Amino acid sequence: MPNDFNVKTLGKAIVKSPLKFPSENVNLEFGFIDTNDRVLYNTTLSHFNQTTTKGETPISFEKAGPHKNLYFNSAKTKVAIVSCGGLCPGVNNVIQSLVNQLYFRYNVKQIVGIRYGFEGFIAKYNHSTVELTPQGVDKIHLFGGTLLGTSRGEQDVALIVDALCAQKVNILFCIGGDGTLRGAHAIHQEIVRRKLSIAIAGIPKTIDNDISFIDKSFGFETAFTIANDIIRYAHNEAIGAYNGIAIVKLMGRNSGFIAAHAALSIHEVNFVLVPEVAFDLSGPHGFLDALQKRLENRHHALIVVAEGAGQNFFDSASLEKDASGNIKNKDIGLYLKDKISEEFESKKFRFTTKYIDPSYIIRSAPANANDSKFCGLLAQNAVHAAMAGKTDFVVGNWNSHFTLIPIPVAVSEQKRINENGELWWNVLETTGQPVSMKG
Amino acid sequence: MPNDFNVKTLGKAIVKSPLKFPSENVNLEFGFIDTNDRVLYNTTLSHFNQTTTKGETPISFEKAGPHKNLYFNSAKTKVAIVSCGGLCPGVNNVIQSLVNQLYFRYNVKQIVGIRYGFEGFIAKYNHSTVELTPQGVDKIHLFGGTLLGTSRGEQDVALIVDALCAQKVNILFCIGGDGTLRGAHAIHQEIVRRKLSIAIAGIPKTIDNDISFIDKSFGFETAFTIANDIIRYAHNEAIGAYNGIAIVKLMGRNSGFIAAHAALSIHEVNFVLVPEVAFDLSGPHGFLDALQKRLENRHHALIVVAEGAGQNFFDSASLEKDASGNIKNKDIGLYLKDKISEEFESKKFRFTTKYIDPSYIIRSAPANANDSKFCGLLAQNAVHAAMAGKTDFVVGNWNSHFTLIPIPVAVSEQKRINENGELWWNVLETTGQPVSMKG
Amino acid sequence: MPNDFNVKTLGKAIVKSPLKFPSENVNLEFGFIDTNDRVLYNTTLSHFNQTTTKGETPISFEKAGPHKNLYFNSAKTKVAIVSCGGLCPGVNNVIQSLVNQLYFRYNVKQIVGIRYGFEGFIAKYNHSTVELTPQGVDKIHLFGGTLLGTSRGEQDVALIVDALCAQKVNILFCIGGDGTLRGAHAIHQEIVRRKLSIAIAGIPKTIDNDISFIDKSFGFETAFTIANDIIRYAHNEAIGAYNGIAIVKLMGRNSGFIAAHAALSIHEVNFVLVPEVAFDLSGPHGFLDALQKRLENRHHALIVVAEGAGQNFFDSASLEKDASGNIKNKDIGLYLKDKISEEFESKKFRFTTKYIDPSYIIRSAPANANDSKFCGLLAQNAVHAAMAGKTDFVVGNWNSHFTLIPIPVAVSEQKRINENGELWWNVLETTGQPVSMKG
Amino acid sequence: MPNDFNVKTLGKAIVKSPLKFPSENVNLEFGFIDTNDRVLYNTTLSHFNQTTTKGETPISFEKAGPHKNLYFNSAKTKVAIVSCGGLCPGVNNVIQSLVNQLYFRYNVKQIVGIRYGFEGFIAKYNHSTVELTPQGVDKIHLFGGTLLGTSRGEQDVALIVDALCAQKVNILFCIGGDGTLRGAHAIHQEIVRRKLSIAIAGIPKTIDNDISFIDKSFGFETAFTIANDIIRYAHNEAIGAYNGIAIVKLMGRNSGFIAAHAALSIHEVNFVLVPEVAFDLSGPHGFLDALQKRLENRHHALIVVAEGAGQNFFDSASLEKDASGNIKNKDIGLYLKDKISEEFESKKFRFTTKYIDPSYIIRSAPANANDSKFCGLLAQNAVHAAMAGKTDFVVGNWNSHFTLIPIPVAVSEQKRINENGELWWNVLETTGQPVSMKG
Repeated sequence: MPNDFNVKTLGKAIVKSPLKFPSENVNLEFGFIDTNDRVLYNTTLSHFNQTTTKGETPISFEKAGPHKNLYFNSAKTKVAIVSCGGLCPGVNNVIQSLVNQLYFRYNVKQIVGIRYGFEGFIAKYNHSTVELTPQGVDKIHLFGGTLLGTSRGEQDVALIVDALCAQKVNILFCIGGDGTLRGAHAIHQEIVRRKLSIAIAGIPKTIDNDISFIDKSFGFETAFTIANDIIRYAHNEAIGAYNGIAIVKLMGRNSGFIAAHAALSIHEVNFVLVPEVAFDLSGPHGFLDALQKRLENRHHALIVVAEGAGQNFFDSASLEKDASGNIKNKDIGLYLKDKISEEFESKKFRFTTKYIDPSYIIRSAPANANDSKFCGLLAQNAVHAAMAGKTDFVVGNWNSHFTLIPIPVAVSEQKRINENGELWWNVLETTGQPVSMKG
Repeated sequence: MPNDFNVKTLGKAIVKSPLKFPSENVNLEFGFIDTNDRVLYNTTLSHFNQTTTKGETPISFEKAGPHKNLYFNSAKTKVAIVSCGGLCPGVNNVIQSLVNQLYFRYNVKQIVGIRYGFEGFIAKYNHSTVELTPQGVDKIHLFGGTLLGTSRGEQDVALIVDALCAQKVNILFCIGGDGTLRGAHAIHQEIVRRKLSIAIAGIPKTIDNDISFIDKSFGFETAFTIANDIIRYAHNEAIGAYNGIAIVKLMGRNSGFIAAHAALSIHEVNFVLVPEVAFDLSGPHGFLDALQKRLENRHHALIVVAEGAGQNFFDSASLEKDASGNIKNKDIGLYLKDKISEEFESKKFRFTTKYIDPSYIIRSAPANANDSKFCGLLAQNAVHAAMAGKTDFVVGNWNSHFTLIPIPVAVSEQKRINENGELWWNVLETTGQPVSMKG
Repeated sequence: MPNDFNVKTLGKAIVKSPLKFPSENVNLEFGFIDTNDRVLYNTTLSHFNQTTTKGETPISFEKAGPHKNLYFNSAKTKVAIVSCGGLCPGVNNVIQSLVNQLYFRYNVKQIVGIRYGFEGFIAKYNHSTVELTPQGVDKIHLFGGTLLGTSRGEQDVALIVDALCAQKVNILFCIGGDGTLRGAHAIHQEIVRRKLSIAIAGIPKTIDNDISFIDKSFGFETAFTIANDIIRYAHNEAIGAYNGIAIVKLMGRNSGFIAAHAALSIHEVNFVLVPEVAFDLSGPHGFLDALQKRLENRHHALIVVAEGAGQNFFDSASLEKDASGNIKNKDIGLYLKDKISEEFESKKFRFTTKYIDPSYIIRSAPANANDSKFCGLLAQNAVHAAMAGKTDFVVGNWNSHFTLIPIPVAVSEQKRINENGELWWNVLETTGQPVSMKG
Repeated sequence: MPNDFNVKTLGKAIVKSPLKFPSENVNLEFGFIDTNDRVLYNTTLSHFNQTTTKGETPISFEKAGPHKNLYFNSAKTKVAIVSCGGLCPGVNNVIQSLVNQLYFRYNVKQIVGIRYGFEGFIAKYNHSTVELTPQGVDKIHLFGGTLLGTSRGEQDVALIVDALCAQKVNILFCIGGDGTLRGAHAIHQEIVRRKLSIAIAGIPKTIDNDISFIDKSFGFETAFTIANDIIRYAHNEAIGAYNGIAIVKLMGRNSGFIAAHAALSIHEVNFVLVPEVAFDLSGPHGFLDALQKRLENRHHALIVVAEGAGQNFFDSASLEKDASGNIKNKDIGLYLKDKISEEFESKKFRFTTKYIDPSYIIRSAPANANDSKFCGLLAQNAVHAAMAGKTDFVVGNWNSHFTLIPIPVAVSEQKRINENGELWWNVLETTGQPVSMKG
């Protein structure tokens, strides 16, 4: 558990915010944020009682929201926005809302888009920047992808800070995942080392929903929504053939949240395989045996597998990494397809398999309505915080509140499905799959 | 504020649950529910501190979940399910999940569906009941509407309890809104009066999301998702004509949550009118003046109005009630259309209006993926609680936990948008509409 | 039947087309169009035999396609585009494809958009024009509505031709329906009178699909596709209530093609009411009696009514016209709802009605994939013809060929459902409604 | 060109049809079909003139429709339905409409579904049959897949006819493609040999739209409609990366209609590769060179490739066949991806590729509204013809008429894109790809 949940600030905020509230002189429920008010991490009564009994201060997160006083002076502020890593539904919504919020609410008119991720800061790649205006980002929220382009991989932090200085950037918004946020933190550290006053704000992007201390990340709901349709169609493939088996591989490098939520939203899935829950293929309780039993009873089977499941089947020495340093998973979907074929052919057990990998269709889709709303509010809160001089933070949400979390906290550990927790139990209950497919 | 948040129980639960957990002898995060563990109502640090300082016990809700011991014996239990009030996306998902959970997890095989709401209990209507089986409810989650049919209006509580006794029903699941839940509570009271052991479980249905102490109700997200598309098309109508005005009326009899969330998910809306925020039509700060200014600047305007907004414009003496006792709102959309025409025609100000009322298209649609997941879990938790002998309760959710709430608490007050709160402020920021259109 | 199906030409085409074909020196199936090749109107063998026997020349349409020689010289050509009348899915696709085809294939760089229909030519309305470029129309095909805006109503033809001259326009593309095309023809006549060399090209827009000599108009398929979903949801409303009646009003002022095709694509509709087939409300064979019988048997009914159906029920003296001169239909949907209520209330026959009018949601939606393809090809063929100096024509399609038709032919009569034809018989077979509801 | 377009009949039709027409004693445009009326194959004026001059009879197809006299007596007729080959949107619509038409219009109550294709007739597979009723097929049109299941591969024709006799089947409806129809014809021949009176009716199923003498096959439009969305998302992947390349592989074993139509419906595709148009990878005009030029100019590229394109790159000796005898194409998508990588890596040319194969998602989806309508009418016409004793036929459509074609004609040659025809020229114009990528 990290121990410092306090967000850093560049310095004293003394510029009056241009934002207005409906009725400033009445007793408001909502207005400029009080940094002292925080959101509890654990919200059970038992934890309340324990903490109180011990006289401890419970862990809490800073609430996000508009600040009465700003660190940056709108007229002189220049902002840069960069998106990194893989595509995720909602990136364009975030970019658009950052631009609109800065432009219309905070009167910040100098906004540049950095092209193709952190590469865009590095001269040798020769990417030009894009001036961002409300008109230029109009309608982009209706498309998937990212207007700015993206790339994977680390870049030289010193060169990035050089570029920020050269371009006189005051605030950098980084839309990206784990790796990007570590990069953003390194940039922040270099800024501190150079004693600069540049704010680094993170908008966490993980379609896998695997960032700790954040209830849900943008794009995640859109992802399992689209997966839902695809799984229904895969189900048609399974029932269309005698002993038909449909395997759908979904995103989830280290955590199976998309697979689990998709299975909970459509009740026809028979097996969910995720990185967090190990399973054997062979053996009396192994997956292949369970699959055969299912086929013998019902003559079709629908399998959803997260890309990071069953990586233990691959020789770890051979695992490659992508440009972001993420381990490139071996294709567990194809592996299962092959192993099923081997097994059932050797047994002369009739079957048909259909393997479906819709990842690129899902991650490049536009955000659904709920994610659109969420992206808009995330971006607005990121702007509120950055204008007030907060830095080295990500904007998150917890228990229906938008929050600010230090980047080191957000990247301290990945959120994963608890094999003994409620979510996984719900998956077991819904699929009817064996509690354990080990041994 | 209600003062009793404890859910009632029919009696001692002594039947062993048939449910199993992955690994009973390890230290589980999740397993059979501990009724003493509860979810805090207020999750801010400041409230924690105040409560602790005063030595008070904070308000909390009972957590929902599977119980180790049940009150009802599966083999002998007979269950009835009824749906009441207007359509809402997800009703069929709830029905299906109730049936599957009862049948497959709790081995309850006697399940009847009551047709056309509470009417189905009353002999004079002559509606037959439907036997519900997993096969019979297969696929119904993919349709909108309700398999069972529905109706509005109160029925004689004594007759309903007579029917429950005659049919030997042990548990009644009521899917319905405010009025239905009051009816369910009245049935519970009659059951108590007669000293019967029949559990009454509520699954709160309000497309308007206006039930207090519940974060969101099923169908609500689907509703503003569908509204999102419709509003985008309405925007096309507005920009297609010179000084084009498109008015979209959305559901929201007493609260404007659908209108507000739809506007936050699509950034083109210029005016959101809700029941909670009064406005004038005429006068220098009135709506018509603001609308004309908008048209003069941009030559089109997009208005979203909740059905319950501006009811003060109608003579209260003339307000009718529907069969459920809900006040039948005068059509504020048509009223606005007429008033806009009157005003602008008298001023010889050119304009075109298009009025769109998509309510019946939205409420009869199937649930989206997230609502489908939510409905499934709501139903499962309702079954867990009812089998354990809980009664006079609704199943809700709060801060990511499923909860149980006494019906009297759930219907004690309606949830409404706080004119001085964060949600409304976000709407004002997003639409750019005047903070006040009074005077 | 019109007797001149030959399209007029401004003059001799002597400019070499910039278009290229894959392999000019091989025996091509397709290449520059041969104006002498035409498409037969009637394609039955019996008609072939009759015509041959009589030694007559059968009626035929000019094929559309690229011409080897052009009338206009690309570098000097200026084009104007105008959209008129109500919204229809695909207008933006047509605009975009006109622009791209002119710009990239014919090197025409001067393209202006006229705003808000023919009004945009008239000085007093003070609408500026829009320069149209491929970049400016990128993505607009994904939205409904029209980028240019539209309006209804005639404008002074002399003033329009004055404006065309003042702006040095060589070709005017008019996207519009019956009224617009009559206007376009009048403009053409004024051009002839003034001995000008301006081509007038029509792209017929009628969501109702009611233009004769054209198999289908763009947007029509999208319209009944969207209607399909809405009718399914309406069906949920009908079955959700005891004796539930859902009435969906669809577009179709003089012809019921949308209603008929929607009913053929979804098999749950019980009654289709269209302008072409008269019906009585009362009487032993009237609609109300048939409806009651349906309810008594099945306890729900789904009615689709075209907006122009049953106009005989309204006092013709009171019928108003809109700005386009179209008769403003009285709302037959509301009328039916009222009459049903009157009848059944007087008989104390229980029922519930839900009335749904989705017209503005349908016509403002983006074109579906098939209509998108169709719009692109329509626009390309309109450009081919206009660049070759064809004028006073519309581009159509017949038996899988794109065709050119003189405007006077296209507006000579409206296409309507034949009460004794195959389409209506299919509707009767599919709905099971009485063959006649007269008397 | 086949030379016999006349459909065979089992014998004299002497049973009066139970069908009724609106007004039998007036001069109808549509009523019982006149078998002598036929639909012309070639509908150009030039062909008319040539034929007339030569005094020839033009090629024509029999019109489909209801017959006044039937061969089969409804009360005694037993019908079997079988679906074979790969999934295709609309199979369930066809099944449902066959059942409803037989049951409600022709009073045929004995309808059995054969499970898993022709296998279902063969005892050793041990598949039971399904009794088909209107209630049992209600709603199945809203799902993709096939209620009956399917399989590939030939079965012993004698055993199939044995089974038809044993089950006393009078009419067999076969829903399937090329291979299935050849099988159906073989069954017909065996029936003739045995002098039986069993009608064999084909409903041609080819998602690739590659059956000659038929304008379009059901499911084809749905296929390119779904592909349209997927290609748009793939476009997001391409533009999201520097020199991003997205490759979408679509169905089309021998013909590229889906790829071509999808590209015409979405204008962002840069390269369409189809089986009909050969191309080189290397060389100065080869595909890789054209791709690199595209990337240098625009820094992204979107490629749509039909599965059967470029099969010449694979060693023909190694080509396998699937159970239907179709050549199993090597994966041209993966091959392109590999070759692009090889080429650009060797040149140190930066790029990213994303490969998307959505085939199983497309073919298993439900039919869209237009295909639903089409499937319904196809099925109805198949029933009309079979009840009248037509046999060894498929139902098709030509120039907006439903037609009947002898199976040998339908399978005589595959429909393919003409490299020198209008469709391919439109694709070249829309994509801007080089006319030839050879040499």
